[in-house]
Amino acid sequence: MLKIKSIGIGADHRGFKLKEKIKTFLETRGYKVIDFGVFSEERADYPKVAFELAQHIKAVPKVKTPKLDFGILVCGSGIGMSISANKVKGIRAALCLNPEFAKRSRQHNNANILVLAADFTTFSKAKDITEVFLSEKFLGERHRARINQISNYENKKK
Amino acid sequence: MLKIKSIGIGADHRGFKLKEKIKTFLETRGYKVIDFGVFSEERADYPKVAFELAQHIKAVPKVKTPKLDFGILVCGSGIGMSISANKVKGIRAALCLNPEFAKRSRQHNNANILVLAADFTTFSKAKDITEVFLSEKFLGERHRARINQISNYENKKK
Repeated sequence: MLKIKSIGIGADHRGFKLKEKIKTFLETRGYKVIDFGVFSEERADYPKVAFELAQHIKAVPKVKTPKLDFGILVCGSGIGMSISANKVKGIRAALCLNPEFAKRSRQHNNANILVLAADFTTFSKAKDITEVFLSEKFLGERHRARINQISNYENKKK
Repeated sequence: MLKIKSIGIGADHRGFKLKEKIKTFLETRGYKVIDFGVFSEERADYPKVAFELAQHIKAVPKVKTPKLDFGILVCGSGIGMSISANKVKGIRAALCLNPEFAKRSRQHNNANILVLAADFTTFSKAKDITEVFLSEKFLGERHRARINQISNYENKKK
C-alpha cells in the first residue's frame, strides 16, 4: 500500500486562486493537503507564508508538526516565494514553468518545494507540473554530491 | 556620467556556452564583467560557482572584492543555481524565463542575481531578459517591507 503523502500549500494574494484549485485537485487525488493560506485575495506578504510552510517540510532541521513530504507555494511570478523558501535550511524550492522543469527539479535537485507562477501558468499547466513534481524521483549519484555541497554551505554559514 | 556597473557571471557545464555569449554581449555594452567560470563544457558542480560569485555581490555582508553590482548565473534549468545562490545571506536570485520575469524580479523583489536556464532560453531571449534586468529599478514601498521580512529571517536564523 502506498503511503499517503502530506502536502503543504500556500500562496500570497496573487497566487490565492490557483492555490485553491490545486488544493482541490490534490485532495481529489487522495493527498493529505494542509493549507497555510492566504485565504482571500486581500494583499498579503509572500515571505510570511513561505517561511511558515517551509518549517514543516521533513527535510528541515527541527521540523515542526504536522510534518510535510512536499510543499507547493504560489505567487504572481514565483520569484518572491522561491527566494524566501530557499532561505530556509534544508529547503530546495524550484520555480517550475512547465513539467520539464518539475522533472529536472526532482531528478537533479531533489526539490522539496514546488513554486508556481500564477500570472504565467494556467490551471491545466499547473496540474501537469504538479503531477510530474509529485511522481518523479531523485536520481542521486553526482547530483547528490551537489546537494551535499549546498547542505555543507548551510551548515557552516553563520 | 553613468557609473559603469560591475557584473559577475558564472555557469556550470550546461550553462557554459550561453554564459560565454552573454559575457561578450555585456562587454560590448560597456559593462565591467568578471567571469567566475566554468571555462569549458567539462562536468562541473553548480553550487561551487554560485557560492563563489554570490559572495562578491555588494548586498552581501562581508562582501569580497571585487565587489559586484549584479550577478548572472546560468545552468541547464536554472533551478540548481537559484537554490544555491539564494542560500547566501543578502542574495535575492531570480530565475527569469522571459523579460517580464526580469522586470518583476527587479521592481518587486530587488533581485541582485539573474538566473538563466540555458536549456530553455535562446541567446536572443537571454539578451532581452538581461537588458531588462539591468535597466529596471526596485519600486520600494510595500515591496520593501517584504524584502525586510526576508532579511530579518536571514539575520535571526542560526
